[in-house]
Amino acid sequence: MAYYNIKFFSNSLCRHVNFEMIIPNDKRDDQPWKKPVPEGTPMKTLLLLHGYTGSAFSWIEEETAEKYHVAIIIPNGENSFYLDGKATGHAFCKFVGEELPEYVAKTFGFEICPENTGVLGFSMGGFGALHTGLAYPDRFGKIGAMSSALIQHEVAGMKEGVGNSVANYDYYKEVFGEPKDVLDSDNNPETLIDKLISSGKKIPEIYQCCGTEDFLLENNRQFHAFLEDKKVEHIYKESAGNHDMVFWHEYTGKILEWMFG
Amino acid sequence: MAYYNIKFFSNSLCRHVNFEMIIPNDKRDDQPWKKPVPEGTPMKTLLLLHGYTGSAFSWIEEETAEKYHVAIIIPNGENSFYLDGKATGHAFCKFVGEELPEYVAKTFGFEICPENTGVLGFSMGGFGALHTGLAYPDRFGKIGAMSSALIQHEVAGMKEGVGNSVANYDYYKEVFGEPKDVLDSDNNPETLIDKLISSGKKIPEIYQCCGTEDFLLENNRQFHAFLEDKKVEHIYKESAGNHDMVFWHEYTGKILEWMFG
Amino acid sequence: MAYYNIKFFSNSLCRHVNFEMIIPNDKRDDQPWKKPVPEGTPMKTLLLLHGYTGSAFSWIEEETAEKYHVAIIIPNGENSFYLDGKATGHAFCKFVGEELPEYVAKTFGFEICPENTGVLGFSMGGFGALHTGLAYPDRFGKIGAMSSALIQHEVAGMKEGVGNSVANYDYYKEVFGEPKDVLDSDNNPETLIDKLISSGKKIPEIYQCCGTEDFLLENNRQFHAFLEDKKVEHIYKESAGNHDMVFWHEYTGKILEWMFG
Amino acid sequence: MAYYNIKFFSNSLCRHVNFEMIIPNDKRDDQPWKKPVPEGTPMKTLLLLHGYTGSAFSWIEEETAEKYHVAIIIPNGENSFYLDGKATGHAFCKFVGEELPEYVAKTFGFEICPENTGVLGFSMGGFGALHTGLAYPDRFGKIGAMSSALIQHEVAGMKEGVGNSVANYDYYKEVFGEPKDVLDSDNNPETLIDKLISSGKKIPEIYQCCGTEDFLLENNRQFHAFLEDKKVEHIYKESAGNHDMVFWHEYTGKILEWMFG
Repeated sequence: MAYYNIKFFSNSLCRHVNFEMIIPNDKRDDQPWKKPVPEGTPMKTLLLLHGYTGSAFSWIEEETAEKYHVAIIIPNGENSFYLDGKATGHAFCKFVGEELPEYVAKTFGFEICPENTGVLGFSMGGFGALHTGLAYPDRFGKIGAMSSALIQHEVAGMKEGVGNSVANYDYYKEVFGEPKDVLDSDNNPETLIDKLISSGKKIPEIYQCCGTEDFLLENNRQFHAFLEDKKVEHIYKESAGNHDMVFWHEYTGKILEWMFG
Repeated sequence: MAYYNIKFFSNSLCRHVNFEMIIPNDKRDDQPWKKPVPEGTPMKTLLLLHGYTGSAFSWIEEETAEKYHVAIIIPNGENSFYLDGKATGHAFCKFVGEELPEYVAKTFGFEICPENTGVLGFSMGGFGALHTGLAYPDRFGKIGAMSSALIQHEVAGMKEGVGNSVANYDYYKEVFGEPKDVLDSDNNPETLIDKLISSGKKIPEIYQCCGTEDFLLENNRQFHAFLEDKKVEHIYKESAGNHDMVFWHEYTGKILEWMFG
Repeated sequence: MAYYNIKFFSNSLCRHVNFEMIIPNDKRDDQPWKKPVPEGTPMKTLLLLHGYTGSAFSWIEEETAEKYHVAIIIPNGENSFYLDGKATGHAFCKFVGEELPEYVAKTFGFEICPENTGVLGFSMGGFGALHTGLAYPDRFGKIGAMSSALIQHEVAGMKEGVGNSVANYDYYKEVFGEPKDVLDSDNNPETLIDKLISSGKKIPEIYQCCGTEDFLLENNRQFHAFLEDKKVEHIYKESAGNHDMVFWHEYTGKILEWMFG
Repeated sequence: MAYYNIKFFSNSLCRHVNFEMIIPNDKRDDQPWKKPVPEGTPMKTLLLLHGYTGSAFSWIEEETAEKYHVAIIIPNGENSFYLDGKATGHAFCKFVGEELPEYVAKTFGFEICPENTGVLGFSMGGFGALHTGLAYPDRFGKIGAMSSALIQHEVAGMKEGVGNSVANYDYYKEVFGEPKDVLDSDNNPETLIDKLISSGKKIPEIYQCCGTEDFLLENNRQFHAFLEDKKVEHIYKESAGNHDMVFWHEYTGKILEWMFG
């Protein structure tokens, strides 16, 4: 397994940033029992999105990346909800959904298309997986959204100057835009669903899950209901679990098998 | 010379971030001609601030860090101008001026006090050096400000929705706050000077320089004039040079000798 | 949790090398439910040794490092078995047992003494944990040796020019010294035990374990028998398991509780 | 400019190792004055070899890598003189001359052939540049050898157990093989020259230089004389200078222009 730490200039973020990659492209001569991937097998790619307060890291075991022959792209999302802010250099959605996949495709020769490419995250990264996949359906074929921080309705109801226990009003306004405009904006995954339906475009396949002890359970049930209502086929799973790595490890296995198995 | 890449949780930024350090604390047995630093010599520290579009890196040679027995703290400033934004997790001034020095002091046992500590930067980092040093005069004794992006007057005059060739209005508003309030706010180094004078507190020593071909020359002359006007003792140097590493290498040598020689 | 990647000049290895550290010394304001460590609590330290073909990495969860207030030192052992080779720059035992702990103690102010310090590893790193702990009993109080590659008797019997399926004769000779001298040399943990007994010095506490499906099971049983024979108190555990991370994760939890609980 | 830090499994070294790369393949939208490289321009590659006691680092400015459109491969040579030792996992020549170029070619799609590829180093890395280039002339078209540690004759004369002020006899024997066999072995760049001449193969172009104050001046003059004697066309430069980065910066500029200009 090869681990990459890459610093490059991002035009979306207007600065040099680091991201990480895991690429199963080194063949160990001392492990002859591992069957080599047949020559010409395309590398799949997975965009992996961390949660609020986090930074680039992988919670996927290297055996898994090898098994599915998938390269993992791991950006730093910086509490951005993977959305495009209005200020110059805050285009995080463009960064993870467009610039990074294009740079990776160009650099490594991977074909980043719906057949080969998924996006997975938890919490803020679950929101990001849904949002990014729906914003770039020509690139991402499958979305894994775990314990997603689908807080757009809460943000939409925020009163000037009043945030919540996580962050202040200015933060939410900067990240999501004017609260009153959030629901109708492209920052709302529901809006993106509506637009894809209207345009007749193919919606990426969705695997959504949430633990029954998770404080975001209601938000996830609502989004699930929204998808039902709109007749968007998707997988929705609830099971015992909290907002933690135990739950995410469990479902990462299931989702990767669903994505690439 | 020891090079550190450190990821830790920053409370000012509400997330895990990386910063770098250079610490001259490994003694090579194969270089007996280098006199060891006498036991008990306190380590000096230098906060090193990069420019707009940049990220953590050091342009200081290891011989220099050894010569002055100075540890270098190198944060990622992320186009923040090293200012405290209003949104949760945007407290970059607090980050570089308070949290990072305290973490470093606690972790490595360095005494970060005006006698031992300087701050140096170029361009956005020159602005940051002035601002951070003036905001935390109990910590920083000397400020090296090269080709500083002292753009607060330009920002103060910005009209709603109209940015400049570098960035849009939203960016400047997010970084500096409401344009109309900038000059009176603590985001303006001049305000900090005025406050230090009023309070009778000691102002850190300042070494300001700018190349005569630099597009920021006028901004630097104005700040120099402001300091003259306020009777703040400082060194001001102009010489042939542009807004580039050639000029900054030249003056880094001079400033470090002035700071720690 | 703070993650360190450090490059410094090693006198034992005569070159610049990288090592990693994990230090639980960043306090998150957004996790008020975590009780802060009482002021003045000494940081414990754990030297963590990877196996053959590996490189510096931690398989210990950050919650664990926090729980026991232990800093983890993670060197690159480079297939050295953590032994001192004869050639200049091959002093890996001195590197991990002496130079690195001293550098860490000096840099971070940790007290690296038997009461505070353990060493843990698996496979080649299990051998290394035993060897390093027994070679430096004034520094390491507890040894965790998982599935240890206690191959000194096999190496001792090697015929000139004949290696095994893992590596050639030259490799073993370089790492362990002349095969015929291995058993009597300080590269043999049994010799170190004998010397500690003769000198009346305190032997570090030992926790040895091995999976019943492990190809190194016999080697571990023999070392266990040796300890029994020499009346060296120690914990020895066998249970279902293979030579893999599943087994090492299971026992890492048990051993850390035994070391620092 | 993009900076890569890559960890992968090396079959030559039988373990996970890190290497670095610099690749000029990120295009900054904010620097429209920089002409983009025409579509389809092949990326050139440069293997960059550090000296004794060093580790992977680049002393080449990013402007230079951009100017010549060259990707730089920067391995950790670990005091190996970039030679194949006899022990399993010590095949450093194979590592830098074969495994690394092949991995890079496969991963990034670069064509690593004499027309596109150079090797450059100083001191031990100058020796390595000559040796690697001459060992793999089908891959490296140009060799830049600065202040090269052409110590093979000194090593050949070493008496059992007697090293020199740099390292002990065991080190030299491990790195170069039995002293008495060194000159006739493939570890001697002169032998490689002889073999290339005999076989009628094309010898890579050579740019050799040394400072007149360098302690390795005589070694370099002897190799220069050897090349003259063998009628191998090459550039040889002597000028005022010592065994230090000042000299290497000066000649790196000249050599890169010669290689890729």
